[in-house]
Amino acid sequence: MDCTVQKDTLVEAVSQVMKAISTKTTIPILTGVKMTAGLDGIVLTGSNSDISIKSFIPLEENGNENAVVHTPGQIVLPSRLFSELVRKLPDEEIHIQVDSRLTTKIVSGASEFSLNGLDPEEYPNLPVIDEQDVFKIRKDLLKDLIRQTVYAVSVTETRPVLTGVKWMIQNGQLVCVATDSHRLAQRSVPVEEAEDSAIHTLVIPGSSLNELSKILDDDDEQTVDIVMTANQVLFKSHNVQFYSRLLDGNYPDTSRLIPTESKTIIELGTKAFYHAIERASLLAKEERNNVVKLRAESSQVEISSQSLELGRVYETLKTEKFDGDPLRISFSAKFMMDALSKIDAQNVQIHFVGPMRPIIIRPIGDENILMLILPIRTF
Amino acid sequence: MDCTVQKDTLVEAVSQVMKAISTKTTIPILTGVKMTAGLDGIVLTGSNSDISIKSFIPLEENGNENAVVHTPGQIVLPSRLFSELVRKLPDEEIHIQVDSRLTTKIVSGASEFSLNGLDPEEYPNLPVIDEQDVFKIRKDLLKDLIRQTVYAVSVTETRPVLTGVKWMIQNGQLVCVATDSHRLAQRSVPVEEAEDSAIHTLVIPGSSLNELSKILDDDDEQTVDIVMTANQVLFKSHNVQFYSRLLDGNYPDTSRLIPTESKTIIELGTKAFYHAIERASLLAKEERNNVVKLRAESSQVEISSQSLELGRVYETLKTEKFDGDPLRISFSAKFMMDALSKIDAQNVQIHFVGPMRPIIIRPIGDENILMLILPIRTF
Repeated sequence: MDCTVQKDTLVEAVSQVMKAISTKTTIPILTGVKMTAGLDGIVLTGSNSDISIKSFIPLEENGNENAVVHTPGQIVLPSRLFSELVRKLPDEEIHIQVDSRLTTKIVSGASEFSLNGLDPEEYPNLPVIDEQDVFKIRKDLLKDLIRQTVYAVSVTETRPVLTGVKWMIQNGQLVCVATDSHRLAQRSVPVEEAEDSAIHTLVIPGSSLNELSKILDDDDEQTVDIVMTANQVLFKSHNVQFYSRLLDGNYPDTSRLIPTESKTIIELGTKAFYHAIERASLLAKEERNNVVKLRAESSQVEISSQSLELGRVYETLKTEKFDGDPLRISFSAKFMMDALSKIDAQNVQIHFVGPMRPIIIRPIGDENILMLILPIRTF
Repeated sequence: MDCTVQKDTLVEAVSQVMKAISTKTTIPILTGVKMTAGLDGIVLTGSNSDISIKSFIPLEENGNENAVVHTPGQIVLPSRLFSELVRKLPDEEIHIQVDSRLTTKIVSGASEFSLNGLDPEEYPNLPVIDEQDVFKIRKDLLKDLIRQTVYAVSVTETRPVLTGVKWMIQNGQLVCVATDSHRLAQRSVPVEEAEDSAIHTLVIPGSSLNELSKILDDDDEQTVDIVMTANQVLFKSHNVQFYSRLLDGNYPDTSRLIPTESKTIIELGTKAFYHAIERASLLAKEERNNVVKLRAESSQVEISSQSLELGRVYETLKTEKFDGDPLRISFSAKFMMDALSKIDAQNVQIHFVGPMRPIIIRPIGDENILMLILPIRTF
């Protein structure tokens, strides 16, 4: 292998695939980054047992020369060292040359590294994906829907399937649901679906979606192709391919968790409500449970909390709208703040059925988002 | 106590005194921040066994009203909670009222906190400082001289006096020296000295100087008054007083460590040299010692390092100037980078006496700064 590549381009591609590489892997070759120089460009690959990322550097793009491949070939290089090194090289051009003993010479300006490469033949093959079931989604929508659901996945492994987000495709809608059985987040978006698509439900690990979100740049107008198979999902964005395994197991039916009636409905400014809870939480989090109380009556909502050691806090908010019975309820400040912080709308509508029934939070003006949290018994 | 204070002003004053407060103290009252409302303003105090900080909020400053004191008094409040709380209050005005049972009502907008205060009578008195031996120094100079010396103090407690920086005042000069016995940093600055000053040597804990540096704002034209006593030093800046205890024990005579002759002198661009060492360190730090090699001959300097597992790196720098014998020497990449990163001059002059004698680094154009590092035997 022998190629010359522009530093900026290489730095970006390496930082993308690094998100899939874990130094804690039990398979030593996977601590490396694989580099393949071919006739149309250079491919970098990083992988762990859950996700794999491929980043492609085309020889030329938008009239800029990114790379020249003198001799095609491949090599695996220690990933942490390689990623630090390319960032710190002195010149804008980097020359990479691999000899028959896998020794890799990296030259940039007056700096010359000689790294011991690893055998690319030992690097596992990425899953071969049959690109039959494909749908498209706008990048900004994809990022929103990850942000608005993944926070609610379970962080414990007691029910592994709950560490993932369920994606269902039905009637041109993608519906995403996450729950840890104390709270739930649901968001649907319209998608362009392939006509003869066969697979309609995936459970994608929350950690995979978090990493995916990090490598999606802010070029929001672009779409991402999503390829579904029985045990893998592939996200294809501009020059980047992101593979994730899927979770096995039956995802519970969450529709029966969501109450259909409500006895009290209040509307509040999203930020004002968030900050009132945050202030109450200053005392509540010193107690072990981080519970705040809410009392709603006529057009007023009172948020309060107390700590035996430190003191008490009260705050009164004026509701934008109030319907139904007066109410006293307690809930986790963290769960409420998590939900509110994912809502971009100016106002939220909150539905209560009673002090021990789920609380529903909906942004006003967007029927596609629903957050649910269970209350905590204190009264 | 009953007072009203502007949020911004209170937030700033609290964040200053928080730097002296440790949650790990064995004296419970010192986890609190003391607030004293008097006729001319409000004083906040934070303290641990090493340092104490007082921040003063004048009732009025530059035509702005900062505070109104309705009833003078004092209270001690849990510091972490109080500092988070004042930052998160909804309104620009904060009303603080203490009742006879030390319950402290903090009201801002619709938010009302009721905190359990601690007894201010239990709060220890700050040392009484006799303001006889005082000198002045410009704030920007003080920050520079802390930055350029404190990095070289010892981090181990085997010789406690070496965890401090020695300050000597002689002939209108303040000379600061720090050493951990493997490296040394020295900087002198001119100062305005009181005429009949008696104490001429202080050893100030490095940790105190680091905290002091953080609370000095960037209003560089101002001067800081430094009051010296036998066991305390007091830094008086605009509205802030910073007290530190001094270290006991005899600070070693460092002058005999600094070679007076040199056999090889090279001049290099500070940044180019720093970055070459940094790249060599990428491999060197994977080995346990983080040692890089330097070979100087005629007008060239070669920096290199290697790791058995990962590979090798070489880099050649052109010297700006070269005088004396060819040389091979090894040293800690970290120590060299620490020293170079504190030098603002474009070029540095490096003096060598031989492969096992101290290396001296001096910024070109500033005779007042000297860095020294000991080499490591590898050749």
